[in-house]
Amino acid sequence: MFAEIITIGDELLIGQVIDTNSAWMGQELNKIGIEVLRIVSIRDREEEILEAIDNAINRVSIVLLTGGLGPTKDDITKTTLCKYFHTELVFSENVFENIKQLLAGKIPMNALNKSQAMVPRDCLVINNPVGSAPVSWFERGDKVLVSMPGVPLEMQTVMKESVLPRLHQRFHSDVIIHQTFMVQHYPESVLAEKLESWESSLPECLKLAYLPKSGIIRLRLTGRGKDKNSLESTLNCEKEKLENLLGADILTEEDIPLEIMVGELLKRKKLTVSTAESCTGGNIATRLTSIAGSSEYFKGSVVAYDNTIKVSLLNVSPATLELHGAVSEDTVIEMVKGAMNALKTDCAVATSGIAGPGGGTPDKPVGTVWIAAGYKNEILTYKQETNHGRMLNIEKAVNNAFLLLRELIK
Amino acid sequence: MFAEIITIGDELLIGQVIDTNSAWMGQELNKIGIEVLRIVSIRDREEEILEAIDNAINRVSIVLLTGGLGPTKDDITKTTLCKYFHTELVFSENVFENIKQLLAGKIPMNALNKSQAMVPRDCLVINNPVGSAPVSWFERGDKVLVSMPGVPLEMQTVMKESVLPRLHQRFHSDVIIHQTFMVQHYPESVLAEKLESWESSLPECLKLAYLPKSGIIRLRLTGRGKDKNSLESTLNCEKEKLENLLGADILTEEDIPLEIMVGELLKRKKLTVSTAESCTGGNIATRLTSIAGSSEYFKGSVVAYDNTIKVSLLNVSPATLELHGAVSEDTVIEMVKGAMNALKTDCAVATSGIAGPGGGTPDKPVGTVWIAAGYKNEILTYKQETNHGRMLNIEKAVNNAFLLLRELIK
Repeated sequence: MFAEIITIGDELLIGQVIDTNSAWMGQELNKIGIEVLRIVSIRDREEEILEAIDNAINRVSIVLLTGGLGPTKDDITKTTLCKYFHTELVFSENVFENIKQLLAGKIPMNALNKSQAMVPRDCLVINNPVGSAPVSWFERGDKVLVSMPGVPLEMQTVMKESVLPRLHQRFHSDVIIHQTFMVQHYPESVLAEKLESWESSLPECLKLAYLPKSGIIRLRLTGRGKDKNSLESTLNCEKEKLENLLGADILTEEDIPLEIMVGELLKRKKLTVSTAESCTGGNIATRLTSIAGSSEYFKGSVVAYDNTIKVSLLNVSPATLELHGAVSEDTVIEMVKGAMNALKTDCAVATSGIAGPGGGTPDKPVGTVWIAAGYKNEILTYKQETNHGRMLNIEKAVNNAFLLLRELIK
Repeated sequence: MFAEIITIGDELLIGQVIDTNSAWMGQELNKIGIEVLRIVSIRDREEEILEAIDNAINRVSIVLLTGGLGPTKDDITKTTLCKYFHTELVFSENVFENIKQLLAGKIPMNALNKSQAMVPRDCLVINNPVGSAPVSWFERGDKVLVSMPGVPLEMQTVMKESVLPRLHQRFHSDVIIHQTFMVQHYPESVLAEKLESWESSLPECLKLAYLPKSGIIRLRLTGRGKDKNSLESTLNCEKEKLENLLGADILTEEDIPLEIMVGELLKRKKLTVSTAESCTGGNIATRLTSIAGSSEYFKGSVVAYDNTIKVSLLNVSPATLELHGAVSEDTVIEMVKGAMNALKTDCAVATSGIAGPGGGTPDKPVGTVWIAAGYKNEILTYKQETNHGRMLNIEKAVNNAFLLLRELIK
């Protein structure tokens, strides 16, 4: 069963907004056996929307639209859908009630809010519990078209509560299983060579993909077929072969961010963690606290961007800074000890480096980052030496800090 | 002049990777007067790639492909392009030399790396200085198709160094100007009502768009036409009218992140800043340090996720925590003072709240965040009370912290 996603909005085409909705939708649709064939982003122009809808509806059974449902003039999805389906807008008492409740005590109702209660006739209108733009669900023959708001929280809420369950019920479809392996220590081409003969002999129903990112490669094995049990046993058999080939270089067999992997490990071992960050500037803390419930193991951080703070709050010795510089193994070792002491945690990670673009020297070029992980009296260090630009240097340092901490406490 | 972007890769459709390339490309193309009509994401399947290319080439003059150029089996863009353009792969000595240099001293050359030197005949091959997959530039009649690697750093490098300058030279095109206004204090519908009559009377060549995000609305006025001077003077005239309508609610007339806006202000006033973060968990520091050169004004942070750290490092009184709770005006006031003292900065921001999904109480429901900004002896506070889910609650608190600090020191 195939779907196409159409995201509507000039802001996507001029690049002012990154389309994060489609990836989320792709993940959720896959879980119910619906495969996304295409994602198309188009402008708020009637003829372009009409053309995209028409193309999609001829190609697949399910067309999902997001965006263009706001109360302002540039939002024309609703009227365009009326044109496509030869219908008109009518006032919905239900939707109006919903909007009234949403606005109650916040902002006064005005004509534009009220206009959100005008909905296409000849479709199922589904209330949006977290916003004023409702969902329109059109069925024509064996095709379904659903128009949803583009605000991520609203789209996710209506998808989870209404659209996904309805699609699941409406369409019978193939079983799709994904199994991801997070692999460390390999450049993509070396890994591909190592796996070549295994990959060539994979059964027809399985497909392998490589997804390299910031020093880690996610290998994704996708199976599709009619029978869940036989698909699972085929996949398990190939999974075992892969485990034998890669051994401990497989970090985990879940497709999870490293902060969750490390968080679970800390929870299991009942350990607390803190961070002492220079060049990563709070990014490790940010990643750790992005996980709900992280307060169980994460206590806090000192972001010591300025050297005076490395000394005053992390007790790094001025002599070390003088002798070895801030970007040095000695400094990160003192930082990680300082974090465990000052923040009273069982373990800690520390970073100090030159994220770039400026600040490099012949000895310590841009991209040089020293990382330390500490657990009680044990300390591991790692020197990162590649330069992929400021943001990627920081991201890679965060990942390496997580990998180093895992190595130490696993 | 119109372009279409085609991004290729199963990982985009199943949602394992978010397409950030297209937004970046859209921005850069706009700057040279090329408008992106569509962004299409498709799977690594020959027939789907062929169909997407054919559709695009019939619709627009410029087709830009990214992805599917890796050395592994799932990458088939190169062979598919050969099929589409009735040509074949040939070995390029130049590209091979480039790959050798890139790998030198890092990983050994293997057959897969070497296969990257096979390039389509009958096209211009442009070296990729930061990766092993080169760019293929096809010209057929008045149409141009360019195939680029999908790794963001590689795509950006080849676009900036080769593709954009060539496109600019090759195509004459309309002038496009964007002017963005960042507006605070308005829900979208209220702002739209306020601007309705002005918007209706905008000249044909100007178009207005609303881009709301985390408490701020970016208004984007886009002009397009043949003559740059007349377009600019029309736009300036409307800009003045808008400034009169909105006054001080216009935060800035640049489309920049708040961390840059605040950073520039701090630099101009020669002030230093620190942060004391509880529920934002390092996100304010992360945003501040995402800007190269931020070490000029940003000194460091204490992420006090655990209350003991609020006491030990920020000198928050245990009595305050006991009496008012961690999520209170009194606590963030003490935190912000503690940050200025401990980190020795002229100003600081502090946050304490319930990001969710758990931890809410009837008194302090999920989404409640207290924020303080301090500058010497002056302190401003703000209570954020909406709940849009953990990540958005945090993002909004970061934005409000920046706005509060700006309010205080501007």
